[in-house]
Amino acid sequence: MTEAVAPGKIIICGEHFVVYGEPAIVAAVDLKAYAYASFVDELGIHIYSSRVSEVSLRPIHEVIKLLLESRNVRLDNRGIAVSINSEIPISAGLGSSAAVAIASILAVSKLLGLKLKKREVISLGVRAEEFIHGRPSGIDPTISTYGGILLFKRGGRVRRIKPTKPMEFVIADSGIKRSTGIMVRKVGELSSKYPEVFLGLRYTMRKIVRRAMKAIVEGEIEILGDMLNLNHGLLSAIGVSNSKLERLVYVAREVGALGSKITGAGGGGCIIALAKPGESDRIASSLIDAGAEAVYKARIAEVGAM
Amino acid sequence: MTEAVAPGKIIICGEHFVVYGEPAIVAAVDLKAYAYASFVDELGIHIYSSRVSEVSLRPIHEVIKLLLESRNVRLDNRGIAVSINSEIPISAGLGSSAAVAIASILAVSKLLGLKLKKREVISLGVRAEEFIHGRPSGIDPTISTYGGILLFKRGGRVRRIKPTKPMEFVIADSGIKRSTGIMVRKVGELSSKYPEVFLGLRYTMRKIVRRAMKAIVEGEIEILGDMLNLNHGLLSAIGVSNSKLERLVYVAREVGALGSKITGAGGGGCIIALAKPGESDRIASSLIDAGAEAVYKARIAEVGAM
Repeated sequence: MTEAVAPGKIIICGEHFVVYGEPAIVAAVDLKAYAYASFVDELGIHIYSSRVSEVSLRPIHEVIKLLLESRNVRLDNRGIAVSINSEIPISAGLGSSAAVAIASILAVSKLLGLKLKKREVISLGVRAEEFIHGRPSGIDPTISTYGGILLFKRGGRVRRIKPTKPMEFVIADSGIKRSTGIMVRKVGELSSKYPEVFLGLRYTMRKIVRRAMKAIVEGEIEILGDMLNLNHGLLSAIGVSNSKLERLVYVAREVGALGSKITGAGGGGCIIALAKPGESDRIASSLIDAGAEAVYKARIAEVGAM
Repeated sequence: MTEAVAPGKIIICGEHFVVYGEPAIVAAVDLKAYAYASFVDELGIHIYSSRVSEVSLRPIHEVIKLLLESRNVRLDNRGIAVSINSEIPISAGLGSSAAVAIASILAVSKLLGLKLKKREVISLGVRAEEFIHGRPSGIDPTISTYGGILLFKRGGRVRRIKPTKPMEFVIADSGIKRSTGIMVRKVGELSSKYPEVFLGLRYTMRKIVRRAMKAIVEGEIEILGDMLNLNHGLLSAIGVSNSKLERLVYVAREVGALGSKITGAGGGGCIIALAKPGESDRIASSLIDAGAEAVYKARIAEVGAM
């Protein structure tokens, strides 16, 4: 049996606007998906998970098939079983699907003795996402594979961002499930309807992302907090927030977070709060009191999938 | 005895950014301040109000003095009493101080048989505001004097906006008192610290205001709602919101408002929600349930102070 692990992610800055070619900052966090692969007597590919529904295991099944085909692997008279165990909440904008796919791909490639390049792993991860929603940006499989913090642009161009100070994020799950596809479409409609306003928002987001990147590199943690707040306002502007998300975002700030925002597509899912060192616990418990379904204290996962 | 009345106001779009030279849309609403002036035996100027504190009556006292001096009015052996009665909530961003000042100026000028031009009335109203905070934009005395809806730019340039459809706004007071001056300073600090981001926000707000103006003129009420929402996101971005204001803003949308936003300086004060015709009552009662201290159904006051 082989084992692989892949981290989930948070978007620190730039979600939604990344779809329009603007840069985004994405970080791997130490919430992880584990996959275990082994040969079994029963023919075919078998995916098991205690938690993930059968529907969402289908894409994994498909990419493992793709992997075998692309490498001309023939299983002859045996099969492959992949067991998945993930601590990343589902449909919450934390890259759970991508991490599960990446971990599965790596576990199977180890089992078969295949050496995959990072780019091949990501490309298979993107294929898995395509089975779920039409045209994914590729941001989730990319960060899960690389780890750390990346400046990401549409088309998969990445640049590593090296933080000089450790950062503590509190992630709070609103408990509201949403579809990334629907939120992306909603923003698409807004951008077509009000192109000039949207152009202004895009320009602003680009500047926020640039300033946030500099803040991470130079350890200006308060400034990073300001950028999270600015970013959140733009997400509110484009209509991907709601009263529960706002409550969590503002409560976090009111109990001392340096900044807080929706992370990911919005409409539900998670918010993140940047905590002063040692203040994560207090912020986390206030977020639970404010109605968060779950909270996670997360640090950046320096190492990607392995 | 003479009587004068002056309306309060809401900012439909563009607050804060108006300080930086961007246009704003401001509307007079049918919440009013009344002033009654009469000659009295006791020498001097006497201002009375059942509601307004003595401190905030001081500026009125000063501008009435200014008015008398500028017109060389001598009271000889009598005085003037001004009684104020206002239905506009105080320190809530609804232009209460300006309306009270404008009504008082008009009541006294009627008593003295003076014919003041609108510009003179506004100019005295601005002087009254200067006694309270340093450098007011002049937006409040301007709209209270003119009534209707105005596109306003710093320096007092105005252009009348004629709506083609009646608009119903619900105003909800968060009950949180705040200082306009402090909020304006806070935004000033943000703009100096992150000039490029702020430039993007300014550009975006300008586009929002232009589109909102067109929507009012052409009766595109849903589009006006979208502009309120976009505007609100930018106010959240610049840090003038809080969890209570967000609750009111989002609850209004969730119960069917076409758009909702903070109006005025933020940090407290009021939010406005644009209601579909006939839906004001439902939105108003939901806002009370959500914790608003008071709600007001407001229509545009077509006529200014008189």
